[in-house]
Amino acid sequence: MGYTELDQLAINTIRVLATNNSGVTQVDATSKANAGHPGAPMGLAPVAHVLFNKFMNFNPKNPDWVNRDRFVLSNGHGCMLQYALLHLFGYNVSIEDLKNFRQIGSITPGHPEAKETPGVEVTTGPLGQGFSNAVGLAIAQAHTAAVFNKPGYELFNNYTYTIFGDGCAMEGVACEAASMAGHLKLGNLIAIYDDNHISIDGDTKVAFTEDVLKRFEAYGWHTQWVKDGDHDLQAIEDAIRKAQEVKDKPSIIKLTTTIGYGSKLQGTAGVHGNPLKADDAQSVKRKFGFNPDQSFVVPQEVYDLYGKRAAEGAAKEQEWNALLEKYATEYKAEYDDLLRRLSGKLPEGWEKNLPTYKPTDAAVASRKLSETVLEKIHGVIPELLSGSADLTGSNNTRWKNAVDFQPPEYGIGDWSGRYLRYGVREHAMGAVMNGLAAYGTVIPAGGTFLNFVSYAAGAVRLSALSRVRVIWIATHDSIGLGEDGPTHQPIETLVHFRATPNLMVWRPADGNETSAAYYSALTAKNTPSILALTRQNLPQLQNSTIEAALKGGYVILEAPDAAITIVSTGSEVSLSIDAANYLKEKHGIVARVVSLPCWEVFDAQDKAYRLQVIPDGIPVLSVEAASTIGWERYSHEQFGLNRFGASGPYKELYKKFELTPEGISKRAIATIEYYKGQKVRSPINRAFEQVV
Amino acid sequence: MGYTELDQLAINTIRVLATNNSGVTQVDATSKANAGHPGAPMGLAPVAHVLFNKFMNFNPKNPDWVNRDRFVLSNGHGCMLQYALLHLFGYNVSIEDLKNFRQIGSITPGHPEAKETPGVEVTTGPLGQGFSNAVGLAIAQAHTAAVFNKPGYELFNNYTYTIFGDGCAMEGVACEAASMAGHLKLGNLIAIYDDNHISIDGDTKVAFTEDVLKRFEAYGWHTQWVKDGDHDLQAIEDAIRKAQEVKDKPSIIKLTTTIGYGSKLQGTAGVHGNPLKADDAQSVKRKFGFNPDQSFVVPQEVYDLYGKRAAEGAAKEQEWNALLEKYATEYKAEYDDLLRRLSGKLPEGWEKNLPTYKPTDAAVASRKLSETVLEKIHGVIPELLSGSADLTGSNNTRWKNAVDFQPPEYGIGDWSGRYLRYGVREHAMGAVMNGLAAYGTVIPAGGTFLNFVSYAAGAVRLSALSRVRVIWIATHDSIGLGEDGPTHQPIETLVHFRATPNLMVWRPADGNETSAAYYSALTAKNTPSILALTRQNLPQLQNSTIEAALKGGYVILEAPDAAITIVSTGSEVSLSIDAANYLKEKHGIVARVVSLPCWEVFDAQDKAYRLQVIPDGIPVLSVEAASTIGWERYSHEQFGLNRFGASGPYKELYKKFELTPEGISKRAIATIEYYKGQKVRSPINRAFEQVV
Repeated sequence: MGYTELDQLAINTIRVLATNNSGVTQVDATSKANAGHPGAPMGLAPVAHVLFNKFMNFNPKNPDWVNRDRFVLSNGHGCMLQYALLHLFGYNVSIEDLKNFRQIGSITPGHPEAKETPGVEVTTGPLGQGFSNAVGLAIAQAHTAAVFNKPGYELFNNYTYTIFGDGCAMEGVACEAASMAGHLKLGNLIAIYDDNHISIDGDTKVAFTEDVLKRFEAYGWHTQWVKDGDHDLQAIEDAIRKAQEVKDKPSIIKLTTTIGYGSKLQGTAGVHGNPLKADDAQSVKRKFGFNPDQSFVVPQEVYDLYGKRAAEGAAKEQEWNALLEKYATEYKAEYDDLLRRLSGKLPEGWEKNLPTYKPTDAAVASRKLSETVLEKIHGVIPELLSGSADLTGSNNTRWKNAVDFQPPEYGIGDWSGRYLRYGVREHAMGAVMNGLAAYGTVIPAGGTFLNFVSYAAGAVRLSALSRVRVIWIATHDSIGLGEDGPTHQPIETLVHFRATPNLMVWRPADGNETSAAYYSALTAKNTPSILALTRQNLPQLQNSTIEAALKGGYVILEAPDAAITIVSTGSEVSLSIDAANYLKEKHGIVARVVSLPCWEVFDAQDKAYRLQVIPDGIPVLSVEAASTIGWERYSHEQFGLNRFGASGPYKELYKKFELTPEGISKRAIATIEYYKGQKVRSPINRAFEQVV
Repeated sequence: MGYTELDQLAINTIRVLATNNSGVTQVDATSKANAGHPGAPMGLAPVAHVLFNKFMNFNPKNPDWVNRDRFVLSNGHGCMLQYALLHLFGYNVSIEDLKNFRQIGSITPGHPEAKETPGVEVTTGPLGQGFSNAVGLAIAQAHTAAVFNKPGYELFNNYTYTIFGDGCAMEGVACEAASMAGHLKLGNLIAIYDDNHISIDGDTKVAFTEDVLKRFEAYGWHTQWVKDGDHDLQAIEDAIRKAQEVKDKPSIIKLTTTIGYGSKLQGTAGVHGNPLKADDAQSVKRKFGFNPDQSFVVPQEVYDLYGKRAAEGAAKEQEWNALLEKYATEYKAEYDDLLRRLSGKLPEGWEKNLPTYKPTDAAVASRKLSETVLEKIHGVIPELLSGSADLTGSNNTRWKNAVDFQPPEYGIGDWSGRYLRYGVREHAMGAVMNGLAAYGTVIPAGGTFLNFVSYAAGAVRLSALSRVRVIWIATHDSIGLGEDGPTHQPIETLVHFRATPNLMVWRPADGNETSAAYYSALTAKNTPSILALTRQNLPQLQNSTIEAALKGGYVILEAPDAAITIVSTGSEVSLSIDAANYLKEKHGIVARVVSLPCWEVFDAQDKAYRLQVIPDGIPVLSVEAASTIGWERYSHEQFGLNRFGASGPYKELYKKFELTPEGISKRAIATIEYYKGQKVRSPINRAFEQVV
């Protein structure tokens, strides 16, 4: 093997590129990022060099090659490391892009964003997420290999590498994911722990003195320690090779490094989250043999060295493509399935399997309706992987005869299994699902109580930001869960997720709407969904259809001369219809009812349609057993629950909070009275467009 | 010591009480909880007996005695265990209360709720929270002891005990808290891990095969294993005694038990989350020597046994009170301070230290304004403990000369230190703060970026539900944080927390409002607060005063014949004032501006005041650099950011999203045009009261 001066030059080039963005060294300093985190890139340049130049298989000209090795920089604030590597290896990331670090419209944002920068697999920065995404990527690889590999055709054998720092190591989400990865014996997962002893508050000894390797050993990981990560390239190489050889455990390599290696402030927090001062940046360049007065200079030998590696990667992809072509002749069905999966499209006609219901069908809880959907469609959507955070029987997420995704040696499943036992680890479930979706061959769906999706809020917003198809099966969606009480009853949860951009919150009212929610979630290639489902039974409604529900909102009870529109979701839709009947019978008042199962989808309909659903002329009352905040957007008056719930049988709770036909009617009448004699304008009408 | 049949009878009484609520065995079955988790109480009865009868110091007649040992049932679903103990030891929990388990209005809800049931310290059930609260309780004890104990006066020496199960062990929040507790060497913390190998999904081997004790060892805990938790009372006793003796580490005792011990389904998931079937409940009673046809029967010997222990606890409190009286004479100042703290009241006149500002004062970021408040008040509010999740320099949470709360042997702080280094552990920070606040002698304030308060959503909602005074110093509160980009820029966060009941979200616009936010947060004994603060500088505004801001919303720019009201918060208030000036200069349009820093507080003002702030007659436009959802409550039209942000310098971002005087003016004009000629009613007017 042997490392030469050229290797050192490459490493120093990465380090210098990381310091280049330290503002004041720029020709045009003000237009450049006077912000950044040079410390991690400078300390991690050696391992990055060894990893990318000796181990990782990738083709910069086709970042989408499905069997590429995956790389996740979990300490995303060190992204100049990744951007520099992507540039040097020939991805479509130019020197200009590096210069535009942290500028509006650049492909080099302050933290790595998937789909924004070629070669960035997942969106990281919020600590702990990337590490957990890597666990998802590794699961997806193991599963996809089990499904598609055949004797003589090892189509899927990529590794997933992740670098993470002390911050990620402290985050609960990563702890959960690490425990899960250890249980699952993910031999293709290799994590490099940047043990630099520095976080923003300074020396990690102020808060973090645990024995990280021992903890990972307890999880079932293979552990190694490279004591001189600054210089000992051979030891780094040996450790990664050893980690590759360990097939029955995920591997962690603790790499002791000096943060900001080469800076005057090396080894201190001063170099973590601030750009280097001008003289320091110059001194770094001098130290590493670069011209201190020039910036963004890359020696040609480094381009050549990395170009050679990139060419090897391209050749590997060609070889793989040839193998795939041969595979196509021998395993036509699998080949077609794989290509279809990679396109993101579902199998032709799959939607015919979605169940439909008539009003005469039995009342069923929407968590059970969801189970029926899974039962009907899992056979035709082989890429669907279900699972639950230890609430399988409550979330109804497991179809009969499902096989667990488990290491075969446990005797309780195998790698081709499509049911994931996430354990009581909601946040990791969210982050692992993001990794699963990012791999490209599977669609993850995971169950927990709606209230505990909040535990995973950090991962959910990254699903939305990184535009991945992730589905939350969020049952027990209101006080309707009853006796478990207010600790388990969501109030703020629906509006929290409705306010998250690019996230669909579906709250179906019956079977047809549940089918529509699944249709929408499964066909939204770039949008995650949360399906809020009941514990309690719901009647099958007249006028509900999959087609109507797919508009996000529709009139479920029309009445020509109505005095009021009642708009509602989920379990409160049938209550609202009952209220309409009650109003007519007891008060001679005509009400129409709108079901609005998904705001995000409804908002995307044209205005004429939305005005037809929520028309001018009569007031609108919203009804939902949750915080009323936000409902002002679709209604003039709101009825809901702006307090915590209570522990008791659900019917009694609904009564206590007056979510009954009588209680709704009372508020409908108050609303009608209040708007009597006024010109009422639909809230759909707005003075200006909301979006910039 | 030696255990007798009486001990066994007591244990079996607890077990039988736990099964009593298995619905159908009730005389009046339908009115009783046909739901519950008998498994954990039946398995944990032995350790609970030993712990409560041999170790715990408490006085059931005064659950508030401040030096009582704390007990936290982290696996809160097993709360019948705790309710049964509270009843048997003579707390104000009657047999009737036990019968009303999980019924509306009972003091025995489905999961334990602090302040609802005497003897319940914290609200648990959402897994991982209770364990983490216990870490907070233990920190508070260590700190309070360091502050108040004097030679000869060991006023504070209580232990904190927690029982937790596999679910809690898997949750990231508990992992974070355990790592923190290990670092802090909390010798007074004793955690009992119910190693019953069962969670809802069945055998824990499907998802959780790590070596838990080894993991805790890695954190720095003292570890023990009691292999027969069902029978070996002596081993349990020995382990707890040993744990008490270890003073320089927190202790964990892994207790292998049989879930649902005594049931036909013992050792299976069938007994975890479902009540026992009638015949099984009868069989349990028979097995333990109880009449199978009777329910809620407690042998008098058991009452007597536990009554004796309770009397001993009462005597200990008396002894302690005597010590305190003597302390009062020798350490008058400390004594007065302690009593004041326990009353929840702040020192007389403390608020005089809040800084005030004039418009001529310099523009300052509200995170810096917050730092100034801390600097000014920390001397007069000795119970205030600040801290940060590893963002000290960014959150500006540390006053000069603050001392870290650290084990003295590290040489970087001591037990009396008032600055907590939470590490990159936002969720644990939230849960630990809940425990700190619950102890009764301190007020916790913790910093992170606003976006990462979402990581702690599970703990935040429990702060609100359990009504504790916890303060989040949530900086970098919008796209105004700039270059870090959309991974760090909150959009949905404000409305998420505004929709959470009993939670104050403050977003101050300048120095006076920042002081008001602190005043409100610090004096709200039963309500947590989130202070959303800027990274960027804010000018000191004309007409802002602490007094005005304390109404939650007020007119900051009045104009007699205004055509529009612009309502705004935080960094957008000065922008809105600039817009009002721009409207006047460029368009001859008169606008008035309202600052609305806290919805929750504004909503609590009388209607006349609110209508004065947001009057009838002219339309209202809201302006906030976040999701507009919810602003419909206070405005007719909304301007904000219903998409993710971007990475770039903050001024450019504000320009990109048109959050400028011009951009606001454009929308103000559109709003005025749209409502021209209409009778405009203030959104403060409602058809009916929202609250049930």
